[in-house]
Formats: sequence, C-alpha cells, structure tokens
Amino acid sequence: MKIDKKPVINQTADDAGTSGHGTMKALVYHGAGKRSLDERARPTIHQPTDAIIRITTSTICGSDLHILKGDVPETPIGLILGHEGVGIVEEAGPGVTQFQKGDKVLISCITSCAICDFCLRGMRSHCLNGGWILGHLIDGTQAEYVRIPHANTSLYSLPEGFDEEVAVLLSDILPTGLECGVLNGRVKPGDTVAIVGAGPIGLAALLTAQLFSPAEILMIDLDPNRLESALALGATKVIDSGDGKAVEKVMALTAGAGVDVAIEAVGTPPTFDICQAIVAPGGVLANIGVHGKPVQLQMEKLWSRNISITTRLVDTVTTPMLLKSVLSGRLDAKKLITHRFKLSETMAAYDVFANAAKQRALKVILTSGPAA
Amino acid sequence: MKIDKKPVINQTADDAGTSGHGTMKALVYHGAGKRSLDERARPTIHQPTDAIIRITTSTICGSDLHILKGDVPETPIGLILGHEGVGIVEEAGPGVTQFQKGDKVLISCITSCAICDFCLRGMRSHCLNGGWILGHLIDGTQAEYVRIPHANTSLYSLPEGFDEEVAVLLSDILPTGLECGVLNGRVKPGDTVAIVGAGPIGLAALLTAQLFSPAEILMIDLDPNRLESALALGATKVIDSGDGKAVEKVMALTAGAGVDVAIEAVGTPPTFDICQAIVAPGGVLANIGVHGKPVQLQMEKLWSRNISITTRLVDTVTTPMLLKSVLSGRLDAKKLITHRFKLSETMAAYDVFANAAKQRALKVILTSGPAA
Amino acid sequence: MKIDKKPVINQTADDAGTSGHGTMKALVYHGAGKRSLDERARPTIHQPTDAIIRITTSTICGSDLHILKGDVPETPIGLILGHEGVGIVEEAGPGVTQFQKGDKVLISCITSCAICDFCLRGMRSHCLNGGWILGHLIDGTQAEYVRIPHANTSLYSLPEGFDEEVAVLLSDILPTGLECGVLNGRVKPGDTVAIVGAGPIGLAALLTAQLFSPAEILMIDLDPNRLESALALGATKVIDSGDGKAVEKVMALTAGAGVDVAIEAVGTPPTFDICQAIVAPGGVLANIGVHGKPVQLQMEKLWSRNISITTRLVDTVTTPMLLKSVLSGRLDAKKLITHRFKLSETMAAYDVFANAAKQRALKVILTSGPAA
Amino acid sequence: MKIDKKPVINQTADDAGTSGHGTMKALVYHGAGKRSLDERARPTIHQPTDAIIRITTSTICGSDLHILKGDVPETPIGLILGHEGVGIVEEAGPGVTQFQKGDKVLISCITSCAICDFCLRGMRSHCLNGGWILGHLIDGTQAEYVRIPHANTSLYSLPEGFDEEVAVLLSDILPTGLECGVLNGRVKPGDTVAIVGAGPIGLAALLTAQLFSPAEILMIDLDPNRLESALALGATKVIDSGDGKAVEKVMALTAGAGVDVAIEAVGTPPTFDICQAIVAPGGVLANIGVHGKPVQLQMEKLWSRNISITTRLVDTVTTPMLLKSVLSGRLDAKKLITHRFKLSETMAAYDVFANAAKQRALKVILTSGPAA
Repeated sequence: MKIDKKPVINQTADDAGTSGHGTMKALVYHGAGKRSLDERARPTIHQPTDAIIRITTSTICGSDLHILKGDVPETPIGLILGHEGVGIVEEAGPGVTQFQKGDKVLISCITSCAICDFCLRGMRSHCLNGGWILGHLIDGTQAEYVRIPHANTSLYSLPEGFDEEVAVLLSDILPTGLECGVLNGRVKPGDTVAIVGAGPIGLAALLTAQLFSPAEILMIDLDPNRLESALALGATKVIDSGDGKAVEKVMALTAGAGVDVAIEAVGTPPTFDICQAIVAPGGVLANIGVHGKPVQLQMEKLWSRNISITTRLVDTVTTPMLLKSVLSGRLDAKKLITHRFKLSETMAAYDVFANAAKQRALKVILTSGPAA
Repeated sequence: MKIDKKPVINQTADDAGTSGHGTMKALVYHGAGKRSLDERARPTIHQPTDAIIRITTSTICGSDLHILKGDVPETPIGLILGHEGVGIVEEAGPGVTQFQKGDKVLISCITSCAICDFCLRGMRSHCLNGGWILGHLIDGTQAEYVRIPHANTSLYSLPEGFDEEVAVLLSDILPTGLECGVLNGRVKPGDTVAIVGAGPIGLAALLTAQLFSPAEILMIDLDPNRLESALALGATKVIDSGDGKAVEKVMALTAGAGVDVAIEAVGTPPTFDICQAIVAPGGVLANIGVHGKPVQLQMEKLWSRNISITTRLVDTVTTPMLLKSVLSGRLDAKKLITHRFKLSETMAAYDVFANAAKQRALKVILTSGPAA
Repeated sequence: MKIDKKPVINQTADDAGTSGHGTMKALVYHGAGKRSLDERARPTIHQPTDAIIRITTSTICGSDLHILKGDVPETPIGLILGHEGVGIVEEAGPGVTQFQKGDKVLISCITSCAICDFCLRGMRSHCLNGGWILGHLIDGTQAEYVRIPHANTSLYSLPEGFDEEVAVLLSDILPTGLECGVLNGRVKPGDTVAIVGAGPIGLAALLTAQLFSPAEILMIDLDPNRLESALALGATKVIDSGDGKAVEKVMALTAGAGVDVAIEAVGTPPTFDICQAIVAPGGVLANIGVHGKPVQLQMEKLWSRNISITTRLVDTVTTPMLLKSVLSGRLDAKKLITHRFKLSETMAAYDVFANAAKQRALKVILTSGPAA
Repeated sequence: MKIDKKPVINQTADDAGTSGHGTMKALVYHGAGKRSLDERARPTIHQPTDAIIRITTSTICGSDLHILKGDVPETPIGLILGHEGVGIVEEAGPGVTQFQKGDKVLISCITSCAICDFCLRGMRSHCLNGGWILGHLIDGTQAEYVRIPHANTSLYSLPEGFDEEVAVLLSDILPTGLECGVLNGRVKPGDTVAIVGAGPIGLAALLTAQLFSPAEILMIDLDPNRLESALALGATKVIDSGDGKAVEKVMALTAGAGVDVAIEAVGTPPTFDICQAIVAPGGVLANIGVHGKPVQLQMEKLWSRNISITTRLVDTVTTPMLLKSVLSGRLDAKKLITHRFKLSETMAAYDVFANAAKQRALKVILTSGPAA
C-alpha cells in the first residue's frame, strides 16, 4: 500500500481490551521503530456491513515499514498493522449480503463503501467512508482476525483451489502495479516500456504489463539481484543505473526515440528524472512511487512533447480481472514470493523484509498455524 | 503558435532575391527587436507537393513576438514571419491533388507530410518533414504570397461564404485551445473547468470548451479587461488573481473540491502552481502555456490524487471539425477579433499587438489590398 | 422506461391491505386495458436500505401504456404504476446513510444495489437486485407514497431551487435519450446526427445531443406537429417521412455521405431500416427503441462499412451530470412538458397521454395536492 | 482480403502486352472458374508515387477463391490476382520518399493515399484513392512483379532477419483478425471470448486476441481438424458445432452468462445467430465474416442487453504494431502456414487451397525461384 495522508475518518475504534470473543496474536505498532507481537482482543462486528475474517495468509508491505519508521503520523500508536490478506469469514453483519460464514475471501487493501461519489466513479482509493484504512487508521490484517468494514465491496470470493499465496498478492501489490503503472501508462501491444525500480512494486508492474504484450520492457535498478529477478519475471532488457547513465542507455536502446511508457516505481526525484528524460513524444509517464518531496518538472522541454504524467492511489477496481487472469494462467505471480513465515514468526519476517536487498527478499508470506 | 525548439529541418530556402515572378511586401525578421516591411521576391514551387498561396487574410501570434525578442535562436535572420493565414491558391505543384489554382484555402500553422510515423499517429506537430516551420524555419504568411510544402495535407478548403476573419483563427489559436486545453483536459458535460490566463489562447480554450458543455468555466487572470472579455465569451465566473488568492477563491467556489480540469494558458511557474493546487482528485491539468523554465511539481501531494498532467503542441487534427462547428454556428469566435489592419500596415499592427494589454487587443487581423 | 422482460426478482410485495400507516391514492393496473385510481395502504420499510418517499411530482411514460395494453406479462395485476418521480423522504431505513427524513429527492427509474457485478461495472440496468422494478415488478410512483429499495444509490439529492417539473424528466427520459442515444452514439462536435422518431424519447435525445455540439441534427418523423416541436428544441433540419422517402432525403442533405450517428427512437423494423440505410461508413447506429420483433440486418452491405450498432437499457449513471447540466443552464428541458395535472386527476392525465398525437402531448406532469 | 463491392476507381490499367521491361509469370483470372499461370508484361511506374516490387513471397486468400467463383463482378477478366506479398523494391517513382530500390518491403492488402478524409480518420479501407484494389481492381501480387500505388503509405520496411513467411501473413490475415475481430471486440484481460469459425481468419483472430490476455478463448467450428489447430494455437476450449448445440454448450461453459466478446469469422446467418445468442449483456459481437445476405437480428431480445455489434473492413493501421509484436516474439503466427509452393507452382497451390478442409490447409505460401 502506498501511504496517502488522508485525515482520520470516522471509524469506530476496535476494542483495546480483551472480551468474551477471546484473544489473538497481532503485530502492533508502538511508535517509531517499535513493534511487537501482542495478545489482543479479537475484533467484533461494529456496523451491520462489517465482517470478521479469520486470517489464513498475510504479507508485509513497504508501507508497513514506512509506518514503523514513524513517517505516517496519522497512524495511531497501538494499531495492528497490515492491509493484505486472505482468510475465512468468521462472522458477517446483517447487512453483508455477498458473503457468509465459512466463505474463503480475499481482503482488498482498499475499503470501499460503494455509494459515495468517489466509489461511484471508480475512485475507491478516495472513498469518503473508506479508502486505505486497514493497518493505517483501523486495525489491520497481520493478526489472527480482522474486522472489515463495508465487507460487501471490500472482499472478494476466492474460487476453489486458488493458490492462497498468490491471492494475497492481489490485495495490493498486483492491482497497484497494474492500475497505477500499466493501465495509467496505457501499455499496449508493440510498446516499449521502461520501469524504473525493480522492487516488489516495479516487478508487479512488470508482471501485469505483460497482460498487454508490449514489445519491450526495460527494467532499471541499482541492484543486480533485483535486475536478475526482473529478467526471470519477463523483462526483455535490464539496465543497471548504478553508473548514473540510465538515460543514455535507454536512449541508445531505443535509437534515440525514448520509450512509449515510463513507469516510476520508486518515488524519488532522481528516479522521476530518469522517467521524464526518457519518455518519447506522445508517451506517458505513469507514477507509482510514493514521493516525500517535490520534483523539478522540465516543462521548458516537456510542454511541446505531447506527453501525459499520471498519478494514482490504487483503486483495486481490477481485482476481479486479476483473479480471472491468475485462474486462467495468463498471470503467474508466484515468483514474487521469496520467503515464508508463520504468523507467530511475524517479528522475524519483518527483520527479513526490512533488509530486503541483503536478504534478496521480494514478498514475504505469513501463514496461520504453528511455526514449522 | 507555440514555439518548439526543433532543429532546423531540411527545407530548401526560398529565393532571397527578386525573380521573374515579381516581388511582394513581407514582414521580415532582422534580429532581436528588429522588423520591417520589405520588398521580397515572390516564392516559387520547390517540390511537387508545394503550393503557392496568395494571402488575403493573416494575423499576428504571440510567438511572432517571441521570435522578435530574439528568444527563438533557430529562426534565421531574414525570415518572413507569420504562420496563420487564408488565401487563394496561385500555383499548385504537380503532386498537389487536393487543391487547384483559384481555390480559397485555410493555411494550417502545422505543415504535415501525412506519411511519417508521427503524422500517421495523428501527431502532426512532430512531423518529421514539417511541423511548425512556417514563419519559424521557412518563410511565413505575413506577406502577399507564401509557399506551403506538403500542401495536400497542410491546407483546407474554405467553404463558400465562410467568414475569412474567423477562418484565420482556425490556423492556430482555436485548434491550440481545443487540442492542448480542452481535448487533453477531457472537458465533458457537467465539469467544472478553470482556465488560468485570459489572453487570446486562454480565450480560445474558453470558446472551444463550450462545445462540450461544462457546467462551470472559471477564468483566472490579473487583467480586469481580459476578465471582462472572458465573461462576454462565456466564462461563468471570473477570478482576479491580482491579490495572489486565486487558489483560495477557486477552492471556495468549488466547496473545497477543486476543479475537474485546470487549463494552464500562460506558461510560468506561478500560473502552473495555481493549476496544480486547484485540480481535484481524478482531474486533469492540461498545459497549453509555453514554458521557459522548469516548474516544481508537488509530487508529495499529487502522487495519490489520481490526476493527469498533459502537454501538447497543437496537431491541428481538429481543423475539419472546427470548420464544421463554425459553419453550423455552434462556435462563434468572431469576438476574439479586436483590431483590423491592411497588410501594408503590418508594422502598425505589430505596434498594437505588442502592447496588447494597453490596447485591449486580442486578435489583430491583417488583410490584403490597399490601406483604407 | 423501456420494458425489459426480466424475470420477477425476489422483492417482498408491498402490503395489499390498509395498515396503521394510513392510506393513499394510487394508480393501479387491473389487467389489460384496466386502470383506476384506488385507495391503497401506504408503503412501509421492508429492508434496512429502503426509504419511503412522499411523491410531490410524477409523470407518465410510454411503458406505462405498454403495461396497460397487457404487453408486459410479468407485471402483476394490482401493481401501482409509475417509475418516475420527485418527492420528500418520509422515512429512511437504518441502512440509508445518504438521505434523511425531509430531504428532497429525485427517484431514479433504475433501482441499483451498487454491489452486484453489473452495478460495479456501471450496468445498473442489469442490477441483479434491482434494475427496472418500480411500477413494473414492485409498486411504483404514481401514488402519494412509494417505497424505494437500495435508497442510497437509487435516489439523488435535489439542490435547493431545482425546478421539480424538470427534475422528474431526469428519472428516466433524459438519461435514456442521453445514454442509449447520445453516449452510445458517440455524438461529438462537428457530427451530423439523425434521430428517427420525434416522440418524447427522441426529443430527449435531441436535447441531450446538444451537450456535445454536433453540427447538424436531423429529426425524422411522420407527425408534422412533432417535427415542429423538434425545431423548437434544437433540430437543425426536420424530415417528414410520411412519403416513405426519408432515406433519400437524408442522403441528399448529406451529399450522399450519410450520417455519423443514426439514433433509432421508435422500435419498429421500418424505422430501424431507415437507420441502417443512412449510417455512414465509420458511423454508429444507436438504438433506443423498444423492439417487439426481429429486424432484418443488411449484413451483405454493412459488413464492410466499419459501423457499430448499439443497444442499451438506461443505466442512469449520468444522472449526476444531468443534474449539473440543468442547474448550470446548459440543458433546458422544460419545453418537453406540455400538460399538467394533479395526482388526483391521474385518470384524466392518462387519457391525454394515451392520445398523445391528437393532444399534441409530450410529457404530462402529475403533482400532489388538490385539483385546481 | 474480404471483398467489398466498391465501384471501380480511376486507376490506370497496367499494360496488357509485353514491353521493353520484359515479361513475368502471373496468375491470371479468366472468368468464373478459370485461371492460368500466364506470361505477362512486367508492370511499370504510372504515377510518381508508384513503386514496382519484385515479389519474393506471396500467398492465396479466401477472397481469391471468391473472385474465381465469379462472385466479384467488378473484378475484370484478365486481372492478376493476389493482394498479399513480400518483396524487394525494384523501382520507385520520384514521389516515393520512404523507400528506395533494394529495400525489402511488406505489401499491405490496403492501398492508402494517406490524404483523403477516410485515410486521415484511419479508415484506410475506405480510402477514396485506394482501399482494397490489389488483385481486385488492379493487377495483384501473385506474379513476379507488382505495381504498388501510393507506395509511401502502402508498403512497410521489413526489418533485417524478419521471417518472410510470417511477414506475408501481415499483409491481410493478421491485421484483419486483429482489427475486425479483436480490437473491434475490445478484447481485454480477463475476458471470455468466443470465435465462431476456425478457418485461417478465425485462427488469426485467435492468435492476435492473445495479445490482450483474455481468460478464455472458446473456438467453435464444425471441422475437428480445425478445432485441433485451434487448440495448438491457443484456444482454451473448443466446441464442435456439428450437432447444432453450440449455443447450449457455450452457455453451459459460461454458467449461463454468455461471452464478453463473440467474434463472427464465417459470414453466414447460422454463425451470426450463434454469436447473437451467446453474447453477454454488456458484450460485443465483432463481425469479421463476409456476408452474402441479410441476417435476422433478434432486436426483441437484444434491445435491452447493452451490446455492440461491429463491422469492419481491415484498415491495416495495426501493421506497425504487428511487425513489432512478431519481432519481439509476442506473436507467433508461423503455425498458420501448412503448405509451401514455388510461384511457378501457383496452379497446384490453388488446387490445395481450394480443398482446404480435405488438405488440412490453412495458409499456403508461394515463393519465388525455380520449383524444388
């Protein structure tokens, strides 16, 4: 999940203490740099459209690390982290008509009320009654149970036999790569695409871009290991930007034309600058990266280039399509998974994911049940 | 015309001296700050697809002033200025199949070969064999005669009875406002649109935006006279930005929501900044302005706003549609014209246009024939 | 409303008898050819997402006449007719978060659950839990009160001062003309559009087409009175098809080219045939008409013409845009209203509307309160 | 090539006799049922924009058989057949700027002038100065040499090392399947697509559909051999329609929902009827088939289904993209080729292709040089 500093919305806080429902293990944020696996009360239904999900598989996202760094001030101390997950419906409020107890479901990182102006326009990320709230403003999915508001339109049925590990990639990272990078970038057959940043989100863009059969996908990163992963996941060429010559290399590879689509998957001025330097006239610069400061936009060059620059917080409107694409075998995302832990080992999982480059970690899966 | 610093292309220079074809009056650029109405040789056919047009109506554009300031180094000293015009075909090369001697034609500011990759994609502005060359890299239209390369696809037949003064607005300013502002901005019924800059190009965007029936068009400028013109041309509200509070005023008028489309029609960092501050989530910032330096893009705010920023040099692909819209009465552009001169008075016309604010000048028409 | 023979969905029937809530007047269908203004029990909340609306303005639609002819077998005897209306929220179920008692609202002819697959794709007409049910499968709006299921997404707030008579045209006829005719037809500036059928729905297409500024709108009908109305509402040319020569006339008016968009607004083979004969290569035939039998499609001619033929049941997704367009003055639909009655005079209103041609009736408004 | 009965356009006929340029072998149409490999004069440049191509690879199309049956009355007796081919530029007129003697080129089945209204709108199939004329109205490609009018925009450079056999499939069959079937059908990731007709054109649709990663592609035909080919080329399921139960089978396979896209690739009423019966609400019926008679369109069912029906003659605007897709390996069309002959064996090649089912023939390649 990318972090949008939206004001805290009116969500009833989950019970802080234990209750008759029993307790559970959960990864709790205790302020900058502090996390622990705590015993917490299980969540309960607050609104008729809530559902309680027993988590069977979850994962850790880069934005969880952002919160832990203290970079997300709106996240309250004491919150359970995580916004990705697969599980079983444990209890459904009376207003939940699409799911019932026992259903296996995918949890979307975006909670959507379906009835506000933004949801009706397909901009669920800006839902006035939801958006990215899980593990950000309300308790999240790195726990044994989670409460999902607006469950009718924030959960998806998982077909029988669907690989749960892959499913959890559909909570956030695959729709983010697809919507913010590939769809906003209008990737199409024959295109030359460059993706700057071969971390998990850049690789998710790489995987989903292939649904539209571009002729070339150039992957740009500083880390040779990640570039190796990119090649394994379908990049047609990789460019090590460690020498500061990524722009020259892209222009050479494209005979000076530049690329049809430049996807920014890092969120820093230097990587944005590569993108604005390589996008061809008529092309698109599709930003995925979460930026912490302004960039300098070279409008004195770009004003006449007939380009588009796009930004987006994932709306997860492509989740049904992604489910079908995985089921049909058109999208094989399994290789994004590098490490597996039990939920009870979440502290260790964080240690690995926080040192992703050294550990050669991409996505780290958490599953329920006792440690092996 | 907006000025794109494209390298000088391989165009045969027009004859510098007089010839058997006779001479003509022409407005000639003599270096920064210097212009004169000179006697020049009439142009001749150089390529089979050239046509020679006898100019009956022309006009002056802001970019002519830019060249005169010396800001466009690629424009050679001695060039005849002007890229807008209406006239009569005087001579057509053997490869010109769409027009013949005597036809009344509209001259496009963009010369299009129709066969290069960019032309085939509709990006005529980037034509590898043309683009904006008239009055920029080859002799232009502020003269009694002009040579038009690739005449088949760089001229348009003018229907009987079409108002010539309005027609000359279709050479550049109306398609520029429409394509770079309105179409790139995806203006649609019900939208709230803001246009920053109520000069001729901003007003052209205002006029053409109304073809798509937005609910509100807010016009923002420092000059009360221009805002008055904007109201007369269809703005639903005007905002004087002289107090530096344009952003606050727009946000107040939109109940804090911002605008669906922000059109930048000036080309400076402060006006761009207004646009990026007022564009609503899901909206578009459509840039028309010619920028001379970079802008600071607030990506730390915009990355999650689901917006698009677009740039474009006019392609004049909408000229046929604009001709129909004027003919049918859907588009009334006549009010953009404030002053009229004979071609022989071009020097005086420049004096007025160079002091547009003081003179309350928008578009200044030049017509052939003796001074009144 | 156009009639779609969808199977009766699982809606709890309204109470047939009187109750503690009191009674009301309602126009009731009693089988083919039979209607009466009866005393009925007021509706009550059945589901948490229901709202009860006190009707202040309503109208009669061509499909109400269809039902009365007995052509809509799925409509049960005893049903209250009507699917258009404006009113005041009398009571809102606990799941209705968007409206409260006392709100003035527009009732959509399409009931949308917002959470089924079709609603999420914007195809509310095919809502698995709604669609066109009002006055078709459940009690409708030609009554003092009506129950609206899924009220959150089936009602719209009416802004202060909005003309109620015009508002009631937004329940069905204006979005139908716009969505099925104009948007499906992809009407754009410069286009030549032909609309076959100048009844209320064809005129609604005529009005809403003008939001996109086509160059020409040709209106075709047999009835000179209706063609006169069409001219008053913005048609640029009208064609009386009474002599069977509509096709020849259109081809003559378009110099043999045909039309960019042909809108079928009748629903019979002969009117469809006019459309398929006049649509230009590259054009669209947008069907609005409700057809009772097959048509012969001239595929031996059309296969190579690069055309599209579209069908659609209104989804009412454009209601927010239409509200803004009326408020801003871009859309003036008032002239569609020809007759006004009190709700207590509904029987007389039907007599007029059933003889629309003779009575020169377009839309007939019903208002609450005692007869004048 | 699909056959469009356009009136014979004003093309200078090729010389009938021999000339100083020498003679060549060519497959000539001599009236219904009659063809022979004749000695003919080599073509010469007629217009400055003509090019003469020495054919190195060609093929036979279903429409060549149509002409031979006498079904295409506008094709004159004595015409050289064929509209597909790859070759070397032998001579280029003075107006040909994009190619020169010695260039290896792909010949498009559509001749495009690039400057008429239709070409400027991308509808090259309806080019007022070209369209499908090769082997239809002017001498074609089943010969040692061919004259190509408007060569600048009717030929494409073949990159070094491009497989010529595959290239010749880009003259017609691949862009036809893609443009008329896949693009008009708006195939997208996750879709369920059905293609009715597994002949060469249906299989071309099958191959190019995969560029957009639909979840399912159902292939429907009567011929088990062709269904076997379909499976080899990427169909996810095949349906033998020999029992007249194709509709029931598709509905069963889609759980009653129908298909998102139904592609008609035969051109008969029964196959069109399958398509209109299986297209889901909101879906598209994309017609590729050449129809000889009308079809009955079930508008009494379809009017409310929110569907589109499209027709198209190939415009070959996708040729550059297809060239990139083949080069990059995203599109592997080689398996469409089943038989190979020398140009001198063209008579035998026709015998095979005319009995395609029995011979299990898909595309039959003709190459220059002496018989093996």
